[in-house]
Amino acid sequence: MDFKDYVANVPNFPEPGILFRDISPLMYNGKVYAAATNKIAEYAQQRGTEMIVGPEARGFIVGCPVAYKLGVGFAPARKKGKLPRETVSVTYDLEYGQGELFMQKDAVRPGQKVLVVDDLMATGGTLAATIQLVEQLGGIVVGTAFLIELTELHGRDKISDYDMFTLMQY
Amino acid sequence: MDFKDYVANVPNFPEPGILFRDISPLMYNGKVYAAATNKIAEYAQQRGTEMIVGPEARGFIVGCPVAYKLGVGFAPARKKGKLPRETVSVTYDLEYGQGELFMQKDAVRPGQKVLVVDDLMATGGTLAATIQLVEQLGGIVVGTAFLIELTELHGRDKISDYDMFTLMQY
Repeated sequence: MDFKDYVANVPNFPEPGILFRDISPLMYNGKVYAAATNKIAEYAQQRGTEMIVGPEARGFIVGCPVAYKLGVGFAPARKKGKLPRETVSVTYDLEYGQGELFMQKDAVRPGQKVLVVDDLMATGGTLAATIQLVEQLGGIVVGTAFLIELTELHGRDKISDYDMFTLMQY
Repeated sequence: MDFKDYVANVPNFPEPGILFRDISPLMYNGKVYAAATNKIAEYAQQRGTEMIVGPEARGFIVGCPVAYKLGVGFAPARKKGKLPRETVSVTYDLEYGQGELFMQKDAVRPGQKVLVVDDLMATGGTLAATIQLVEQLGGIVVGTAFLIELTELHGRDKISDYDMFTLMQY
């Protein structure tokens, strides 16, 4: 199975000049979605993952079935105003604009082994922010996993201290 | 296992007077998250589900592991500006304000048996909109499933033509 057959390449989205890698065909197809999940879950198991954390919102689609497969919990990193109760937050630069991410204070336990997942790594800004949140909570980031890495944007350099698994590279 | 032990009750969120039912403790706990997923997956299987559809963003956290368990695909219903390529849309009334939801035209195949899931049913507005999107695409809604139903808001009346599964009622 070539996972790239299930990525739609969309020019000029969400802004002119951006080639958007749309993972929708992959998740619409049960067999392909399960195969991708199994690949990430295998990596997650090797890293001793006890908790999955993913940023809003496509990170949920990638991370939640991996959490289920491993029998571990899932914690979302969310945008402003979405999470009730006590939170921690991080501000960071996006590929286009600026962002702020939040996690609830009880999302990760100190010492818990966390895998950070998302659909795509571009500049690595969202990923670095999510890692920072997990570490603020005392979690140990044992690895990171994505469906897609855009290698030309060198996001990997931002998180070179962390192990990384990517299913597809462009 | 009493699932209600894993719901945090948050007064005055996101607005004064609203008692928010926060499912975070449920999803942070791997055993409880898996048990809730299995309950919905069992119902989904009984209904002959071929595809899961869930609205942004907590619907992803509930629906994606169910899709994985069944080996079927997952399609998100998303807010404006999130989905590339050709979409269909529906405008609807929310518990607080108005919303618009979108799905990609190739998200559901005509005749496909779809289960619509979300974390919570309040007034049923988001649910009715998601059902409408699935039907615009020719899908057959074989059932709906939620972690939580707020019975006092009578959302059930909006979708009385459809089968419904709820894990918890308040």
